[in-house]
Amino acid sequence: MADEQVAAPSKQRRITQRGIATRERILEAANRLMSVRGVTATTLDDVREASQTSKSQLYHHFADKQELVRALVKYRGALVLQRERGGLERLRSFSGLVRWRNALVQANSLNNGKYGCGLGSMAVELSDHDEQARSMLSETFAAWEKLISDGLHRMRDSGALRKDADPEKLATGLMAALQGGYLLANAAHNVAPMEVALDMALEHIKSFLVESSGEPTR
Amino acid sequence: MADEQVAAPSKQRRITQRGIATRERILEAANRLMSVRGVTATTLDDVREASQTSKSQLYHHFADKQELVRALVKYRGALVLQRERGGLERLRSFSGLVRWRNALVQANSLNNGKYGCGLGSMAVELSDHDEQARSMLSETFAAWEKLISDGLHRMRDSGALRKDADPEKLATGLMAALQGGYLLANAAHNVAPMEVALDMALEHIKSFLVESSGEPTR
Repeated sequence: MADEQVAAPSKQRRITQRGIATRERILEAANRLMSVRGVTATTLDDVREASQTSKSQLYHHFADKQELVRALVKYRGALVLQRERGGLERLRSFSGLVRWRNALVQANSLNNGKYGCGLGSMAVELSDHDEQARSMLSETFAAWEKLISDGLHRMRDSGALRKDADPEKLATGLMAALQGGYLLANAAHNVAPMEVALDMALEHIKSFLVESSGEPTR
Repeated sequence: MADEQVAAPSKQRRITQRGIATRERILEAANRLMSVRGVTATTLDDVREASQTSKSQLYHHFADKQELVRALVKYRGALVLQRERGGLERLRSFSGLVRWRNALVQANSLNNGKYGCGLGSMAVELSDHDEQARSMLSETFAAWEKLISDGLHRMRDSGALRKDADPEKLATGLMAALQGGYLLANAAHNVAPMEVALDMALEHIKSFLVESSGEPTR
């Protein structure tokens, strides 16, 4: 416990940084365990053991499991959005969407479809039991969809997408295809249904491409 | 325990029927509890209490939680497939697909998106932990998709769908849209994203309709 407490102002920065590192270590361990076993099946004792922290360290950072789970929702949301910003923030073409699709499919195929999406599986486990977690997850999905719809807006503004394309609805449909694809790939332990799901959504978006824009409409 | 055991051949039928009724009561209670709380968060004691059975009755039918959960996978699969056969077995037109979509959306909107799909949520909770459950769930999704693809085959055979439509891929894509729609609706506690997801998949299927077939292609 001593290493987490603030003893004197001169030591504050060092000690606080150590506290931050401990908190991060706990969240990393919780993320790893809960990805594989699920949120409900993972106990605080499992997390303590995996993160090599003491009981007092763990409870210093997270009063109970609910607090840890909510922190993990935030942690995973930040990780996913950071990854997705990398793929979507400069999206301006259909081929950019295909590259984004390929990266997600490739990552999932490395696991043979196992584990699904860290946010989607939390949404299934938590949405009906923890209103605060559900609300954070819902906001994260909205932010993720906005990265997609912003890209589709750029494509529509540049004349690549027809004016009657609805970026918000297309983004929601694409996100549903992605999440449903993760779920079916998880049940099949095979990435194939995720590919089919994403390709169907992309085919639909393709049908809104302007032929003269230089994008491949076939 | 006495009411579950076979005392004499003359009593066998009556006693077995009582045993079947007890088993059914346990599965119904497990289904109800696990739909709301999730599989992992529900204990055998919860199920015993909700089904008003004794410990010995419960263990007579299910040796442990895993056995009960696997029986529930089968039970839910049979319920969903029975419901879906009703909506899909005579499917021969696009308007039939729209009616199917409307019934699913209506049922989900009554719960404001809560609980999602009983099979989808089990797939998320179980696929990485119970290979037998995963395999049963995967087969159930395949049977469900086949109800859809059989209908699309009938539409293609009758000339309503173009010959280049791929019923199997369209069925997988529609199932992913449905499952992703359930998941996003659950996170939003609002049926809207499920509607958007299904409509996008149906729009894609619509693009394969033959204009002269009398189906509305716009």
